[in-house]
Amino acid sequence: MAWEEPRKTGMQYRRLGNSGLHVSALSLGGWLTFGGHVENELTFSCMKQAYDCGINFFDTAESYAGGQSEVVMGQAIKKYNWNRNDIVISTKLNWGGANGEVLVNNHGLSRKHIIEGLRASLKRLDLEYVDIVYAHRPDRLTPMEETVRAFNHVIETKGWAMYWGTSEWSADEIAEACGIAKQLGLIAPIAEQPHYNLLVRSKVEGEFQRLYSRFGIGLTTFSPLRLGVLSGKYNDSPDAPPEGSRLAQGNDKFLNYMKNDVYGKSEWQDMIEKAKNLKPIAEKLGVTQSQLALAWCLKNPNVSSVITGASRPEQVVENCKALQALDKLTPEILKEIDGIVGSIQLDPARQD
Amino acid sequence: MAWEEPRKTGMQYRRLGNSGLHVSALSLGGWLTFGGHVENELTFSCMKQAYDCGINFFDTAESYAGGQSEVVMGQAIKKYNWNRNDIVISTKLNWGGANGEVLVNNHGLSRKHIIEGLRASLKRLDLEYVDIVYAHRPDRLTPMEETVRAFNHVIETKGWAMYWGTSEWSADEIAEACGIAKQLGLIAPIAEQPHYNLLVRSKVEGEFQRLYSRFGIGLTTFSPLRLGVLSGKYNDSPDAPPEGSRLAQGNDKFLNYMKNDVYGKSEWQDMIEKAKNLKPIAEKLGVTQSQLALAWCLKNPNVSSVITGASRPEQVVENCKALQALDKLTPEILKEIDGIVGSIQLDPARQD
Amino acid sequence: MAWEEPRKTGMQYRRLGNSGLHVSALSLGGWLTFGGHVENELTFSCMKQAYDCGINFFDTAESYAGGQSEVVMGQAIKKYNWNRNDIVISTKLNWGGANGEVLVNNHGLSRKHIIEGLRASLKRLDLEYVDIVYAHRPDRLTPMEETVRAFNHVIETKGWAMYWGTSEWSADEIAEACGIAKQLGLIAPIAEQPHYNLLVRSKVEGEFQRLYSRFGIGLTTFSPLRLGVLSGKYNDSPDAPPEGSRLAQGNDKFLNYMKNDVYGKSEWQDMIEKAKNLKPIAEKLGVTQSQLALAWCLKNPNVSSVITGASRPEQVVENCKALQALDKLTPEILKEIDGIVGSIQLDPARQD
Amino acid sequence: MAWEEPRKTGMQYRRLGNSGLHVSALSLGGWLTFGGHVENELTFSCMKQAYDCGINFFDTAESYAGGQSEVVMGQAIKKYNWNRNDIVISTKLNWGGANGEVLVNNHGLSRKHIIEGLRASLKRLDLEYVDIVYAHRPDRLTPMEETVRAFNHVIETKGWAMYWGTSEWSADEIAEACGIAKQLGLIAPIAEQPHYNLLVRSKVEGEFQRLYSRFGIGLTTFSPLRLGVLSGKYNDSPDAPPEGSRLAQGNDKFLNYMKNDVYGKSEWQDMIEKAKNLKPIAEKLGVTQSQLALAWCLKNPNVSSVITGASRPEQVVENCKALQALDKLTPEILKEIDGIVGSIQLDPARQD
Repeated sequence: MAWEEPRKTGMQYRRLGNSGLHVSALSLGGWLTFGGHVENELTFSCMKQAYDCGINFFDTAESYAGGQSEVVMGQAIKKYNWNRNDIVISTKLNWGGANGEVLVNNHGLSRKHIIEGLRASLKRLDLEYVDIVYAHRPDRLTPMEETVRAFNHVIETKGWAMYWGTSEWSADEIAEACGIAKQLGLIAPIAEQPHYNLLVRSKVEGEFQRLYSRFGIGLTTFSPLRLGVLSGKYNDSPDAPPEGSRLAQGNDKFLNYMKNDVYGKSEWQDMIEKAKNLKPIAEKLGVTQSQLALAWCLKNPNVSSVITGASRPEQVVENCKALQALDKLTPEILKEIDGIVGSIQLDPARQD
Repeated sequence: MAWEEPRKTGMQYRRLGNSGLHVSALSLGGWLTFGGHVENELTFSCMKQAYDCGINFFDTAESYAGGQSEVVMGQAIKKYNWNRNDIVISTKLNWGGANGEVLVNNHGLSRKHIIEGLRASLKRLDLEYVDIVYAHRPDRLTPMEETVRAFNHVIETKGWAMYWGTSEWSADEIAEACGIAKQLGLIAPIAEQPHYNLLVRSKVEGEFQRLYSRFGIGLTTFSPLRLGVLSGKYNDSPDAPPEGSRLAQGNDKFLNYMKNDVYGKSEWQDMIEKAKNLKPIAEKLGVTQSQLALAWCLKNPNVSSVITGASRPEQVVENCKALQALDKLTPEILKEIDGIVGSIQLDPARQD
Repeated sequence: MAWEEPRKTGMQYRRLGNSGLHVSALSLGGWLTFGGHVENELTFSCMKQAYDCGINFFDTAESYAGGQSEVVMGQAIKKYNWNRNDIVISTKLNWGGANGEVLVNNHGLSRKHIIEGLRASLKRLDLEYVDIVYAHRPDRLTPMEETVRAFNHVIETKGWAMYWGTSEWSADEIAEACGIAKQLGLIAPIAEQPHYNLLVRSKVEGEFQRLYSRFGIGLTTFSPLRLGVLSGKYNDSPDAPPEGSRLAQGNDKFLNYMKNDVYGKSEWQDMIEKAKNLKPIAEKLGVTQSQLALAWCLKNPNVSSVITGASRPEQVVENCKALQALDKLTPEILKEIDGIVGSIQLDPARQD
Repeated sequence: MAWEEPRKTGMQYRRLGNSGLHVSALSLGGWLTFGGHVENELTFSCMKQAYDCGINFFDTAESYAGGQSEVVMGQAIKKYNWNRNDIVISTKLNWGGANGEVLVNNHGLSRKHIIEGLRASLKRLDLEYVDIVYAHRPDRLTPMEETVRAFNHVIETKGWAMYWGTSEWSADEIAEACGIAKQLGLIAPIAEQPHYNLLVRSKVEGEFQRLYSRFGIGLTTFSPLRLGVLSGKYNDSPDAPPEGSRLAQGNDKFLNYMKNDVYGKSEWQDMIEKAKNLKPIAEKLGVTQSQLALAWCLKNPNVSSVITGASRPEQVVENCKALQALDKLTPEILKEIDGIVGSIQLDPARQD
C-alpha cells in the first residue's frame, strides 16, 4: 500500500490523533455484518475490496456476532496473506465474546476481563497482537487506575496491542484516564471512537473540544449514516422501513428497538426531515447523500478515520468515492449544511 | 453464570472492595476439607454443587493439606470444564506447600518464596494464573517493599495472578503495603481475608474501619460459624465435642488444640452461651442458626464474600439459603443480636 | 578478541559515549555494499578480514539493500561462528525493510513500526537481539514520548536490543529524547550516528557541543571519506567520475543525484580543492589521503567509532592502517588541516 | 532442611541483610576448587556433605575455573535432586566465563555483559535462575545507572535472579547504587561480599559502618582464614609454603603472586606473628585455630554468611564445628583477640 500515493480512490492516511499510527480516512467495521448476517465469502470480498481501495484499518469487537466477527476478520487476513505491518486491526472489549449472555466477570474493564478478553479476542483473530484495543464503553464501577494499568499491561508487558483507545466515553472519563496514565508513567489512550454524523455532532464538537489539543486524542467515528437515515433511503417511507433495508430485516435487539420504538416517531421524523433537506445539496455537488455524509465527517480535522460498514464490495467502492467529494465541501457549502442540521454553539469560556 | 440474574439461590455478586473483580457473596474454601479428610469425589461434588448454586469464587492455599487442596481443586476445574473467565480462584502463600515441615526459605513473604511458592501452586492447580494471590499471614521480618515488589512482579511481569490480597494482617501492615505500592507506582492489595463472625468482630469492625474508604480494601472472610459453634451443634455438649463433629474427629494440630485446650473452658462456655441465646432469633426468622450466622456476615457492606466450608454437597445448598435470610435481618433484629453478642464501640476520633 | 592487547592493526576499543559498551574505533558498515552491489562471498571476506583486524562493530539498517544487508550480515555471523558477546551489531529503523516502497505504517518511529521493524530486522539477521538499534532519522510527526517508550519497550520488555541511539537527529531532538527518558524513568539513547568528516564538521563540533557532557552521548560517524572525495580519487577528474569508482557505477537514487547534480558543480569543486590541498599533508606523514581522513575523525574524543565501508578485504586492511597515523596528527598538523578545511567557531556563550 | 531446628552442626540461618532471604551462617564457595584443582567427584561429595550439615548457600562465579565451577556446581544440584527452593545459589559477574582471556565486551558491568554473562552462567549451571547475582568487582567506567538498570532487568523482567549484590565495592559505590535504585524505583542490592577475617577488618567494620542500617546491606564474607594463614598451618614455615599446602601447589596467577612476592616478606611475617599469638586462645577454648577464625567472623552481626572453601568433605565437617565455638567467644575473649590483631577505631563523627 503506497504512502500518500495518489490512487484511484484518492485514499488519505491520517495520523490517529497525535500518535505515530496512520489509519486510512475511511475504514471498515465489522458491526452487524462480519460473522453476522453477511455470508463469510461476502465478508472476505468486502475486506479484499477495501484493501484494494487503500483502506488499511479494520475494526471489530469481542461482542460483534458473539465473537464471530473477529473469527471471520482473522480468516480474511490469513486468506489474503496481507503483511501484518500493512494493516491496522482494532478490537473492542467490554461485553465478552463467547455468547450473548452477560457474565459475572466476563465483561467490563476490570484487569481480569481486559486480560482474559483480549487473550480470547487474539485467539479468535488468530493474531499475535491488535494495533488498537478499545474500551468499548466506560465501566463506571471499576476504578480507572485498574483499567489504565490493565491496558498498559497488555500493551507493555504482554505485547498484545500497540495502542489503546476508548469508545463512547465522556470527556471527563477520557481526561481522567490520561491523567492517571501521566501520573503513573503508563501508556495513555490515543483515540476515542464516538458516534458522529450530520445528525449527532454535539459530543464530538462540543464536549470533546479540549481533548484534542490537551491529550492528543484522535477520533475513529462510527455510524456516519445514522443507521442509513443519511443515505436518504428512508426518505420516502415515513411509517415503516422499506423492504430489504437493514432496519426491516434486523432481528438484533438494538435494531428491533429502532424499528419498533423509534421509526416514524417524532425524533425520527425530524431526522428524515433533515435528510430530505440535504438531498438538494448532494445533487448540486453531484454526489450521493451517503457520500456527502461521509465526506462531511472527514472535514472535521479531529476525525482520523470514519468507520463504514459494508455488506457488498460495491458499497465499499461507493463509500470510497466520498473522498472525491472532500474538496467540494467548501466553507459556503458547510455553512449551508449547518443551516439544515444545526451547528454546535461552543461555550466561549471553555475555549483554549 | 448469569450476572445478577435471579437464581433459585438468589446468589449475589459483589465487587471485591473497590476493584473490578466480582465474587459471589458466598464462596467455597478448601481448608481442612479439599485434599484432606474429604474424599476427592466428594470434593468434586461440593464444587459442582457450589458452581451450580452460583458460587464463582473458590479459595485454597499452598499449605492446605500439604498442597493437596490445590491439586484437587485444579482437578475439579478440569473435570467440569468450566470457563476460566467464569470462575475466581485464589490461593495463599506463606507456609510452603510441599509438606508439613517449615523450611528455611520455603515460607514467608520474601521475593524468593513468593515467586517459587506461586509457581509451585500454579503447577499443583494446573492453571496459568490465579485471580487472587494472598499473603497468608504477615511476615514481619521481610521488608514490606520486598513483599510488595514481589507481588507486583508475579502479577505485572509474570502474569501469574490478577490481584493480590492479605490475610490476617493488621490495619497498619495493610496501610504500609498500600502506601509503598502508591509511592513506587506498584499494584496495591485489593482485599484482606480476616477471621470474622458473630463472635469475632472487633478487628473487621474496629481496627479496619478506615481501610475500606481509604484504600478500597474489600473483605473475603473466613470462619463464619466459629468452627461450628454458631451452628448450635455444640450447644448441648458442654464438656466434649459430640461424636461425628469435626472437633471430635480432628487430628489436625489446630483442631486438637481446640478440642483439648479450649473446648469446655470458660471462653468456650461464653461462646456457647451466646450461641444458645441466638437460637430463638433464628427460630423467629425461620432459618437455621448457621444461616443466621452467614447472613449476619453478609449484612456488613465491607464483606465481599463469606468463605464457607463444605464436606457434602447438601451443606453447600443449605449455606446458600442464607442469602434468603438477608432481608430478614432488619435493623431491629441486628440490634437484638448486638445485645447478645456485644457490639463494637468505635473511637469517634478515628471516624472519617 | 583481546582487550586493548596490542595487535598488528593497533585497533582501539572505545566506550560508546558514557555507556559501558565498547566498540572498535573503526567499524564496518553495510550501506550500499552488503546485500547490494558487493557479492555475498566478498561481503563475507570483508567481515572476516574486519574481525581479524580487531573490528568488533558491524552496522547495518533495515533499509539497506531492501533488507538484504541484514540477511548477508547475519549469514556471515553464522558462517564464522563468532561468539555473540564478542561482537557489537547495530541496525537502524525508519524506512522499512521489505522493499523500496515506502508504506503507510512500515516506516517512521511510531510504536508500531519500531516493534514491527525491529522484529523483522532480527528475523533477517537471524539474531535474538542487536546491541544497538538506531532511529535512522528523526520522525517529526510522531510524539517523542511514543518513540522513547517504544525503544524502551524493545530493550527492557522484549530484550531485542541492549541500547538505542539516533542518526542524523538535531541536538534539540536528542536533548528532548533524553529529557523524556529521564522524566519517565526510561532508557535514554547512548549514541548518535552523524555524517562527519574533514568537509562536514559543523554539526558534530558545533551544534552537538553540549550533548557529550550533558547526556553522555557518543558518536558512531559515517561517511568519513565524503563519498570518496577525501581519498583523493576524484582529484584529477574534474568533470565526471573516473571509471570503476562508486559514483561512476552507482545506480542508486542518491548516487545518481551526486553524479548528475553535484559532481563537477561549484560545491563539488570546492571539496576537490580542499582534498587536493590535503594531499601534501598526507604525503608528509607518509599515509594515504584516506588514512589521513579516517585518523582525523578519530582524533575527536567524542567519536567512539568511525564506520567505514569496504567492498574488498584489502580495503579493510588499508583502512585499519589509519590507526597508526593517529600519533602523527600532532596539534601542529591539526592546525594546518584546519587552515585548509576551515575550523568551527564555537559560540562562547554556549560553552559549559 | 528444617528451619532453626537443632542439628548436629548447630547450623544457623540468617537473613541476608534486611532482606527476606535466609542463608546458612556458613556457606560453600567454589573459588579455586570446584571445576578447578578438585576432582569433580570430590566436589560433589563436598557439596553433599555441606547440604547434610545444613549449609543451604553455595557461591560461585562466571570466572571461577573459566566457567567450570558453575558447570560442576550445576551437576551436583542435578545429581542430588535438591529442591530448588531449598538452596540458595549465587554467581558473580565481571570477568567473563568462557576462558581466561579478558575480552572487549565480555566483562565489566555494562548492560551487555550483565545480560550476556548471566545468560551464559545460567546455561552452565543449567538453572532457570540464581538466587543472588553479584557484581564481582566495581566497574568504574560504566555509569552506575546502566549497571543498576541491568541488574533490575535480569531480576524483574527476565526472572534470572531473585536478588543482586556487590563484591569488593567501596561504601560510596554501594551507596550510589542504592540511591540510584531508590530514585528510579528499581531493585537495590541487598548484600556485599567483602574480604573479611581477623587480619582484614577495617573495611567491614569501619568504611561500611553506615551501610548496614541505612541501606539494609548484609554481608557474605570470603577468605575467613586469610588463605590459610589463620589456620596456623604456615606458623612453622617462615620462608616457603609447606608441601601439600594450596600455596605450594598453586599455579594460579594470584597464588603465584602470594607465593613469590608476599610469602615470607614483612607483611607476611606480621600476619604469621598474629596467627601464632591466636593459637593459645584457640587451645584455651578447645577449638582449632580455623574454627576460632570462622567463629570470630560470625560474631559480627552484620555478617549473614561466611563463605568457606573445601576440597574434602571432612573439611566441611570441621568448618561446621565453628558454630559450636560461637558461645565461647565471650566479650572478654573478643577483647583479648582485639589485643592481638588490633581493633578498628571508628570516627565518632561518622557514627549514627
